[in-house]
Amino acid sequence: MTVFTAVQQAGGADTTLPSREARLAYRDGMASSTAGVANGFVQGNLAILPEKLAGAFHRFCQLNPKPCPIIGMSDLGDPRIPALGLDLDIRTDVPRYRVWRDGEVTEEPTDIMQHWRDDLVAFVLGCSFSFEEALMDEGLPIRHIERNVRVPMYRTNIACSPSGPFAGPMVVSMRPFKPADAIRAVQITSRFPSVHGAPVHLGHPHLIGINDIAKPDYGDPVPVAADEIPVFWACGVTPQAVIANAKLPFAITHAPGLMLITDLRNKQLAVL
Amino acid sequence: MTVFTAVQQAGGADTTLPSREARLAYRDGMASSTAGVANGFVQGNLAILPEKLAGAFHRFCQLNPKPCPIIGMSDLGDPRIPALGLDLDIRTDVPRYRVWRDGEVTEEPTDIMQHWRDDLVAFVLGCSFSFEEALMDEGLPIRHIERNVRVPMYRTNIACSPSGPFAGPMVVSMRPFKPADAIRAVQITSRFPSVHGAPVHLGHPHLIGINDIAKPDYGDPVPVAADEIPVFWACGVTPQAVIANAKLPFAITHAPGLMLITDLRNKQLAVL
Repeated sequence: MTVFTAVQQAGGADTTLPSREARLAYRDGMASSTAGVANGFVQGNLAILPEKLAGAFHRFCQLNPKPCPIIGMSDLGDPRIPALGLDLDIRTDVPRYRVWRDGEVTEEPTDIMQHWRDDLVAFVLGCSFSFEEALMDEGLPIRHIERNVRVPMYRTNIACSPSGPFAGPMVVSMRPFKPADAIRAVQITSRFPSVHGAPVHLGHPHLIGINDIAKPDYGDPVPVAADEIPVFWACGVTPQAVIANAKLPFAITHAPGLMLITDLRNKQLAVL
Repeated sequence: MTVFTAVQQAGGADTTLPSREARLAYRDGMASSTAGVANGFVQGNLAILPEKLAGAFHRFCQLNPKPCPIIGMSDLGDPRIPALGLDLDIRTDVPRYRVWRDGEVTEEPTDIMQHWRDDLVAFVLGCSFSFEEALMDEGLPIRHIERNVRVPMYRTNIACSPSGPFAGPMVVSMRPFKPADAIRAVQITSRFPSVHGAPVHLGHPHLIGINDIAKPDYGDPVPVAADEIPVFWACGVTPQAVIANAKLPFAITHAPGLMLITDLRNKQLAVL
């Protein structure tokens, strides 16, 4: 059973799903953070591009599956993605959007009805929220969640494989663990390739171009104790940074922290 | 490390690789089966489509990753796929090609130099040869290999998710195992999502539309003993059947059993 068919068996038509209730609230104009909303359901990063750029972006995701794992995409000009929610409408169901023109954010609307066009393709990319649930279910402590701050994220010296105008460094998120927990975290997140999968690095931050672990490029710093090592995962901020860097004439993304909530359950993404 | 960057570290520039030697022989016109050639190296199914159909086919693979796992693709009009072999030329390095016009095979040349065009995109899809090596390495017996016949394959009643002109049933391959070995086979092949991954079904063939296990739709029959159960994996014949069914004006594939040999090692495809 694939991610794409699983939702139908998971209750895509069930109108009482908390994920669907949340989407309907956002559709009605609510514009708050999705952190902690509809726990257990997959949240996704959004990228909407015109057809003439969508092929190169799709290939970028294909070439860089760890930072850019596609969990759903629309058909050309079609605002629905039924595999992620039978009634999902990508024009209205994200709490807040960012409209990009020539590499700058020009608007942050709560829907994109007036921006939608017949030549647009929507991509939904997996997010670390899903594997964090799996880590917590196994009893692993997650520092930034305990402290109620954003996960620390860093630009690295790991170059993504380029495709057309899309190029740039991989962005990673960091979670500190005691070594035995780090090993367990590798095992657990390996089960979730569609939401970044196994870590890309652990220990020695400078080897991937991180000079000061206390100064993340995005998010908030968290302490790494002497008996812990930092563990780094490919991060969904990578495609956002790459899209910004490409200075495209037109693109739409979600606003940071205000994600698309799907009817997929995190547990369904496990491959093992 | 992704599949796509791994080859560079695995010795893509090493001119002594048996995979490269095999490709050079095929490039020079050799046109024999690739079964048993360059053991340990990944072999792939080939599909080449014009740009106007490539997007829909790419999406078909995205929607149906178990039968259609992409391990490499070319850039538009570019015959190279360096991630699969630094010197690889997709126009010459497959032993034998099939040129399709309006759903019929019109030629089976040993190179496609005269058919190549600036609007073509090449897709290379994973093949079960890779996970069979992993099963044998763990001591599991594979019936059709022991008997030196082709693996039995069946059309099922499992519909692929359609995309544009691409639609049709999933084709599966079958390998019989004693139950404990079947469980182990599930664990082992789960580690290889880019070459079909975990089985899609086991036991009770009729539940997926197979009425007579002794009469495969492709390949050769093998016996299933009373103390064994049949285990079914999504099969790379699926995209070939779908391409034939779509009756496209123009497409190119490999000829059955005469695959593309890459410089990736099977072991590199394991995610865990």
